[in-house]
Amino acid sequence: MDVEGLVAGVLAGDRRAVARAISLVEDGGAGLEALSAGIYQRTGRAATIGLTGAPGVGKSSLAAQLLRTDREADRTVAVLAIDPTSPYTGGALLGDRVRMQEHATDPGVFIRSMATRGHLGGMALASPEAVRVLDAAGYDVVIVETVGVGQAEVEVAAATDTAVVVLAPGMGDAVQMAKAGILEIADVFVVNKADVAGAGDVIRGVRQMLHLGAAREWNPPVISTSAPRLEGIDELRSAIAEHRTYLDASGQLRAKRRARLLREVESLAAARFRLRAAAALEADRTLADELEARRIDPYRAAAMLGDETAAAE
Amino acid sequence: MDVEGLVAGVLAGDRRAVARAISLVEDGGAGLEALSAGIYQRTGRAATIGLTGAPGVGKSSLAAQLLRTDREADRTVAVLAIDPTSPYTGGALLGDRVRMQEHATDPGVFIRSMATRGHLGGMALASPEAVRVLDAAGYDVVIVETVGVGQAEVEVAAATDTAVVVLAPGMGDAVQMAKAGILEIADVFVVNKADVAGAGDVIRGVRQMLHLGAAREWNPPVISTSAPRLEGIDELRSAIAEHRTYLDASGQLRAKRRARLLREVESLAAARFRLRAAAALEADRTLADELEARRIDPYRAAAMLGDETAAAE
Repeated sequence: MDVEGLVAGVLAGDRRAVARAISLVEDGGAGLEALSAGIYQRTGRAATIGLTGAPGVGKSSLAAQLLRTDREADRTVAVLAIDPTSPYTGGALLGDRVRMQEHATDPGVFIRSMATRGHLGGMALASPEAVRVLDAAGYDVVIVETVGVGQAEVEVAAATDTAVVVLAPGMGDAVQMAKAGILEIADVFVVNKADVAGAGDVIRGVRQMLHLGAAREWNPPVISTSAPRLEGIDELRSAIAEHRTYLDASGQLRAKRRARLLREVESLAAARFRLRAAAALEADRTLADELEARRIDPYRAAAMLGDETAAAE
Repeated sequence: MDVEGLVAGVLAGDRRAVARAISLVEDGGAGLEALSAGIYQRTGRAATIGLTGAPGVGKSSLAAQLLRTDREADRTVAVLAIDPTSPYTGGALLGDRVRMQEHATDPGVFIRSMATRGHLGGMALASPEAVRVLDAAGYDVVIVETVGVGQAEVEVAAATDTAVVVLAPGMGDAVQMAKAGILEIADVFVVNKADVAGAGDVIRGVRQMLHLGAAREWNPPVISTSAPRLEGIDELRSAIAEHRTYLDASGQLRAKRRARLLREVESLAAARFRLRAAAALEADRTLADELEARRIDPYRAAAMLGDETAAAE
């Protein structure tokens, strides 16, 4: 299938074309730019939700429950699990997503885990493009789930319309989450495993941090859930819907999306330049040798590469 | 103090100069390039150790114990806690580093947490420069501790000579750690809280993953520790020393450091280009408007910025 056919397939909502397009984003292969150009006009309609939190807090179970409520309301849903290094192949279900398998035959649901080893910008840049593929394919809701709680994962979650941060008792305290930058990006907090001892402390910890933080136009609600018992799921769905209403009414949806787009373009431009710099270092080993011999320091070498590479155009 | 005086102070091992130099790295302010140039020749002597793992696994306690054993062996030690967003000021001890306070008056110890909001490349680029400051100041050992277990934190840990990955029972399973890329960068595994139920499962999980992975020249040992009971600390110290011996004997120390340096320079060059691209987007809003109107897609915009910015040189 050529890229033109792939684009047509994505726009028609063909599942196999969508899967292949995401593989192309994942691998960063030839044709990615043509894919991006071909689908971009048809994006912007989907509501995007980020789900982030430490391993083991129950993000996948929550994603499965959100998916269920969306389907009950007749919305189509795609779940994209960003998995920085795993080599899962197109469309494969992760072992820990057993709960989602009941949706595997539902044409209104698309579930995919994505590794990002090939893409030039890692998951921070592969993720928004994959979301656009799902958006262009017509899914009403796109849920992006990340593994891990580091800076890069926080960025991926922040690159959605509504970032949901999931905490659970015993998974590291709230203050440490705050250090990872999670507090600043959360639109909705979920304290999952509400039936486990210590859940009350986590809720109080988050509320206290929110109280100490700067005043905000939108005050992130703190929702208690217990995914296996289905408790709090409707409240979570309502909180996400309220945040959406706020985004629309305040003009923040457009402002946030524009700002996000510009940051993405800057990052893409930087990632392209990185390839050029690497090629320049490879082509002429003198600079690398001078660096290793400590005659040129890294900051000066970077400046030299900037000048050289620009001059070579 | 001007940068020349700052460099002289760092090279003389003056604590106030070291603290100020790290603040300069943290803020990414004017003078950073001169600092880098001034100290670079005097770096390369320190043994650097990365400590990474989920919040709550006990990294700080382990760092304190490693510090103690180094001091007993008469080595000077610096601990750098990379804290992506916190606004702790120079030299302040973190609340959770109470155990380290006994070393606060020891002139052979320097403890510092570092936020990285100002530096153009975030913690991935601020961290190696801060390590070079400590190296140039004469510390024999530099321990770099990260908060979080995401891709960026993994990169910071990987940018040390010996990366120690800390796990603990109940903090997310080993398979999920593997997904975050931790398996690939670990030179030594620590299963801390060995006295807590489930520690045996974590150890078995890690061993199984190592067994499944590709054959490696260095087989990462798996050490059980209990920091409050001081169990396993000597074994951990020996494992780190053995890894060091392997690095020296195999020629990997030089090869790894050279490769790391080239990646750092590429990243610095890319970060500089990002600033140029952002300035170009800001100076002429046409491109941003076309992006927002979906007439130009992000990949094409990035390519245009690359050509424009290069042409403007």
